[in-house]
Amino acid sequence: MAGPGEFELIQEYFLSQFSGSDPAAGVELGIGDDCALLIPPPGKRLATSVDTLVADVHFPAKADPYRIASRALRVNLSDLAAMNAEPLWFTLALTLPESDASWLEGFARGLADTARKFGIVLVGGDTTKGPLSITIQVTGATAQPLLRSGAGEGDQVFVSHSLGAAAAALPLVLGDLEGSEGQKQLADAAYYFPEPQFELVGQLSAYASAALDISDGLLADLGHICTASQLGAELNLDKLPIAALAQTAGAERALQLATSGGDDYQLCFTVPEQHVNAVTALQLPITAIGRLTAELGVRCSYGGNRWQPQHAGYQHF
Amino acid sequence: MAGPGEFELIQEYFLSQFSGSDPAAGVELGIGDDCALLIPPPGKRLATSVDTLVADVHFPAKADPYRIASRALRVNLSDLAAMNAEPLWFTLALTLPESDASWLEGFARGLADTARKFGIVLVGGDTTKGPLSITIQVTGATAQPLLRSGAGEGDQVFVSHSLGAAAAALPLVLGDLEGSEGQKQLADAAYYFPEPQFELVGQLSAYASAALDISDGLLADLGHICTASQLGAELNLDKLPIAALAQTAGAERALQLATSGGDDYQLCFTVPEQHVNAVTALQLPITAIGRLTAELGVRCSYGGNRWQPQHAGYQHF
Repeated sequence: MAGPGEFELIQEYFLSQFSGSDPAAGVELGIGDDCALLIPPPGKRLATSVDTLVADVHFPAKADPYRIASRALRVNLSDLAAMNAEPLWFTLALTLPESDASWLEGFARGLADTARKFGIVLVGGDTTKGPLSITIQVTGATAQPLLRSGAGEGDQVFVSHSLGAAAAALPLVLGDLEGSEGQKQLADAAYYFPEPQFELVGQLSAYASAALDISDGLLADLGHICTASQLGAELNLDKLPIAALAQTAGAERALQLATSGGDDYQLCFTVPEQHVNAVTALQLPITAIGRLTAELGVRCSYGGNRWQPQHAGYQHF
Repeated sequence: MAGPGEFELIQEYFLSQFSGSDPAAGVELGIGDDCALLIPPPGKRLATSVDTLVADVHFPAKADPYRIASRALRVNLSDLAAMNAEPLWFTLALTLPESDASWLEGFARGLADTARKFGIVLVGGDTTKGPLSITIQVTGATAQPLLRSGAGEGDQVFVSHSLGAAAAALPLVLGDLEGSEGQKQLADAAYYFPEPQFELVGQLSAYASAALDISDGLLADLGHICTASQLGAELNLDKLPIAALAQTAGAERALQLATSGGDDYQLCFTVPEQHVNAVTALQLPITAIGRLTAELGVRCSYGGNRWQPQHAGYQHF
């Protein structure tokens, strides 16, 4: 099927959904010229991050395009949340094997709904012909960024909500595993609709010393905080909040999914001892799971014994 | 061959070449955290643009990686130039079929040399496994942006330097056509080292009413100015400056290459009648080729007759 040409395609599915200028969002000129023209909010730093999702590497090529768009934008928004930045603008570079009107309609709708929910505006893009992949770059503004490098020895290690749901979801999402209707719904939500933790971060930012979002697995990502802060960590995995969907896989497998499975986009953050009471008093869905140490490396205990993961975390190559 | 893991690969080829922070360039925190942290220059608008280059669609997959990087970054810089924006920052989303150390070394070197030449700083990136493609997003700053929509009826249409070189270069670059050593060098320069027209734009910006870079072919891109400005154009192609490499293809073919061939990244811009003398007095490498009209559509004459292109311009789908 010969689809519409590039310009018609962009016009129909993107320009029609994403308005060209949006003064309230600092967009003087959006899609349609050589560049977008943007007015940065005064007195703040810009935070920017880019992520590519490749079909059949980061999502099933045959997945619902609405869900692909949701996941692609949320994964990027999570990086802004982890930095304590409010969403401003994003761009989309979309590579498609062919111009398929119904795929594009679903994708554009998923993108528009997600963008509206999180208050981020599409300001530019490129569509090219080739194997399906999606690159999104998000930009936000922050007055008080949370880095990976600010942690100190003795700081407590926290995670938000629970871990392991997205890794447990994967075989259900791929159709490799049968599940109940309830499990399939949990899997769909965990995999395609991860929640960027903007609200939590906003409440924590005055107390946390370092933070990141868990995309490659708890142990790998906590390792990034440790490396950036030149510290190690001691974790008590008996305290680890494990997602219900992961728990159905049995205790040992659940622990593997929650420590080494990627894609949860929950926060891992550290809090200096003097702020722990204040953070706890906020009654947020967060759990202390250990402490940073001068001794390098991440060490885990479980049921009173040393515990080792089977895999260190997701490796892209 | 099993290459190094993602983190080692990024560390070795990118972090080592692109420093993490660069206060002079407004980079508070570069590669290596959830987001880069950037300080926008006060009182200016940001201009941003994203382009994807897919292997064997936008460049030969087997091309020298140094040249692929040069072309990928220059093509994006050209969008900043066309907007009259100075380069600030860029991000790279690189999708690679495998982690190949020698390919990455050449690519990183090409990227670093090009970035240094144009004063733009790499602030973030993502590497993923998949079919080779390169997405670059550039951001610059401008106090006086040049849009596509500012043109008025009667404005003169100019182009910079000469057109057709990149389209004439393509068969030589692909090895589909034999050429002399001199032709091959011209083709290599035109295709892999297009020159973003920052210097010209800086001198013209006070006089031009609209501008863009010619990436899809003169007639298609002038059509964008006409559409954005709700005007048409009347061109005298006897005046069109045609690149030497295109002229070797014969007069009629040269005219096709110069009007409909893409990838030259020369400027097309419009100047209101009252500024034409001032622009001409600058003695720049620019040529007046026609005039904007109230009648819509782009019409051409050549040798005193109406002239029609064979193709309207490059279509990505």
